[in-house]
Amino acid sequence: MRVELLAVGTELLLGDIVNTNAAWLGTRLAEAGLDVHTSAVVGDNLERIASAVRDALGRVDTLVITGGLGPTQDDLTREALAEAAGVGLRRDPTLEAALRARFTALRRDVPEMNYRQADLPEGATPLANERGTAPGIRLAIGAGVVYALPGVPHEMEAMFTGMVLPDLLQRAGEPATIVSRTLRTSGMWESAVADALAALVRELDRAGNPTIAFLAGRGQTRVRITAKAPDRAAALALVEPVEAAARRALGEAVYGADSDSLEQVVHHLLRGRGATVAVAESLTGGLLGAALTDTAGSSETFRGGVIAYATELKTNLLEVPAELLAARGPVDAGVAAAMASGVRQALAATYGLATTGVAGPDEHGGAPPGTVHIALIGPDGAEQRSLRLPGDRSRVRELSVVAALDLLRRHLARTPPPE
Amino acid sequence: MRVELLAVGTELLLGDIVNTNAAWLGTRLAEAGLDVHTSAVVGDNLERIASAVRDALGRVDTLVITGGLGPTQDDLTREALAEAAGVGLRRDPTLEAALRARFTALRRDVPEMNYRQADLPEGATPLANERGTAPGIRLAIGAGVVYALPGVPHEMEAMFTGMVLPDLLQRAGEPATIVSRTLRTSGMWESAVADALAALVRELDRAGNPTIAFLAGRGQTRVRITAKAPDRAAALALVEPVEAAARRALGEAVYGADSDSLEQVVHHLLRGRGATVAVAESLTGGLLGAALTDTAGSSETFRGGVIAYATELKTNLLEVPAELLAARGPVDAGVAAAMASGVRQALAATYGLATTGVAGPDEHGGAPPGTVHIALIGPDGAEQRSLRLPGDRSRVRELSVVAALDLLRRHLARTPPPE
Repeated sequence: MRVELLAVGTELLLGDIVNTNAAWLGTRLAEAGLDVHTSAVVGDNLERIASAVRDALGRVDTLVITGGLGPTQDDLTREALAEAAGVGLRRDPTLEAALRARFTALRRDVPEMNYRQADLPEGATPLANERGTAPGIRLAIGAGVVYALPGVPHEMEAMFTGMVLPDLLQRAGEPATIVSRTLRTSGMWESAVADALAALVRELDRAGNPTIAFLAGRGQTRVRITAKAPDRAAALALVEPVEAAARRALGEAVYGADSDSLEQVVHHLLRGRGATVAVAESLTGGLLGAALTDTAGSSETFRGGVIAYATELKTNLLEVPAELLAARGPVDAGVAAAMASGVRQALAATYGLATTGVAGPDEHGGAPPGTVHIALIGPDGAEQRSLRLPGDRSRVRELSVVAALDLLRRHLARTPPPE
Repeated sequence: MRVELLAVGTELLLGDIVNTNAAWLGTRLAEAGLDVHTSAVVGDNLERIASAVRDALGRVDTLVITGGLGPTQDDLTREALAEAAGVGLRRDPTLEAALRARFTALRRDVPEMNYRQADLPEGATPLANERGTAPGIRLAIGAGVVYALPGVPHEMEAMFTGMVLPDLLQRAGEPATIVSRTLRTSGMWESAVADALAALVRELDRAGNPTIAFLAGRGQTRVRITAKAPDRAAALALVEPVEAAARRALGEAVYGADSDSLEQVVHHLLRGRGATVAVAESLTGGLLGAALTDTAGSSETFRGGVIAYATELKTNLLEVPAELLAARGPVDAGVAAAMASGVRQALAATYGLATTGVAGPDEHGGAPPGTVHIALIGPDGAEQRSLRLPGDRSRVRELSVVAALDLLRRHLARTPPPE
């Protein structure tokens, strides 16, 4: 099976929005082992959409369209599909009734224009939209099949995963279900993650199913395991031993799976033992506090913090000994430890977590950019890490936040809660 | 003139990277009044690239390609262009010499593979790459012209602006230069910016040159003025009266132009008067400090801050009167003022800037999500703003940071520095 993608929307051609749908679909189709040969964008123009559809079906047997299914006059995908197939549009009574029910529930009349969303090219099947009003369309034209999906990403994604992908796999004569599991790691470089999993990857490469992929971003590395099987249970049965082997190889670098975030995991670990944290920040300037308050409900576990950017504030607000600062300068592991201890006491938190270092671009106190010290102190001991981080100012700050969260996360995961 | 875009790269089809080049080019071409009819992506496959080139030139007279110009075996744009044009490749002696000079400067031999970057289809003109190693290509095929640019965005952008756009405009018989000026505003909603400029927009719409566009993002609104003229001086002469009129209409909402950032402008205003700022944050949790330390050199003007997330810390660390908190709760304009005053004193800063409010998703202290109070205090008086911000938790926090920076920025711009 060969697939092309077509995105409809003048706003995409004008650069007002970026075609992220194509990237998302490309990833999903690659996971499924389906080749995407071309991806295109056309504006809201009936003739050009219809001609792009005809051209694509002259080259491949499957076309996935996104966009142009809204209720307004410039939403032309329905009409263009009918034109490309040489059929008319008919109003679908089931879609029409659903539309009326939705507006009745909102105590509104259906605007006349919205009835267009109940129109389908003759011979087409509607695809239910669980997250929005625009139904999708499945239409066979000659030997090919066109799937038209809404342009709103979360509507498109649900419809693709739930309805289009199973149909594609069935048509391709492939096992009908794909299951992905993403392991999330922190505190380990992408190359180290790849090294740790090298033997597993070699073994999987021979069989080809499941597959494994590494994705780096935001200072963390994700490992995606993807399996194809006739049904979900069989796919899960393929994923599980690989996931177990990957978890063994990566050890405590794995902090969660799928949609977990590092901040949420730290929040849950703290909450599980009724503990709180306070932060003392230098080079991160507030980013660590911002991360810890990113999650709703964070006031249960986050006390607050001190941003001690000016060096003497480390003494005035955090009681870092002035002699220590004079002897070592602000970029020092001992200073980080004193900051963590100071903020823990001043804010009456269970744990104190501190960052100091050089974000760059210039060196500071004799230390080059990327020199970072992280310290943690709590009722069950103290830990610290000294790092040389790569990248520019914003990257060094981002990686420092991840390193600090990771230090706390590993400490909590490793240390049993008090009885 | 009708233009199509073609991006080359299997990594784009697989969704490993998003095709932001198409959005950037779409915006620039629209500004120039040139219609983009289609934008497509193909993988690193000689036959498919060549056939995409031939198809495009069957529809339009101009094709802009990005990507596939690197030195490796899967960089196939050069070969595909030669194939589409039915010509051979020849090694360009000037490009070859430049390549050798570049590697000699690095005290390295030229890897054999890299010589491919000196190859051009017969009849093609090289386009100099000021920011990288891959030269671009201009090639006439039949009645059309193909421009091939590197895929690395900042290399592509410089080459497009410097060499492709002037050539396109000349071929279109258009004035040969385009100048854009972007005014940056804060503290004013996009709709209010549009209202303030409505008369100016109507007047410009009649003439069609310059044009004006509104761009919203990161809690701020930008106004882009674009003019076309035979040369740069004439284009600037068209932009200037429109810029002046827009500045008059928007008043102090305009904080800068082009690549200025709000954080940088605040930093420069503080530095200009030898002043510093300290922050007291509640709902923003460190984001305000993070913004103020985003700029290199911020230690000159940023003292530090207190993240008083837990309510009682507002009293313990910032000396907000406990009676005030008991009577009004933490989400209160008076509490924000007391926080600003407390942090200014504790951190010995010229200005104290504070945020308190409800980020959501739940209400807090009887106030609904989006309720935000910002306060500023300095040697030249105090100001405060109370806002009801729209959006989810992360949007409310982002808008709060912009509102706080905007309050400080306007105060500094309005208040003459002490003698």
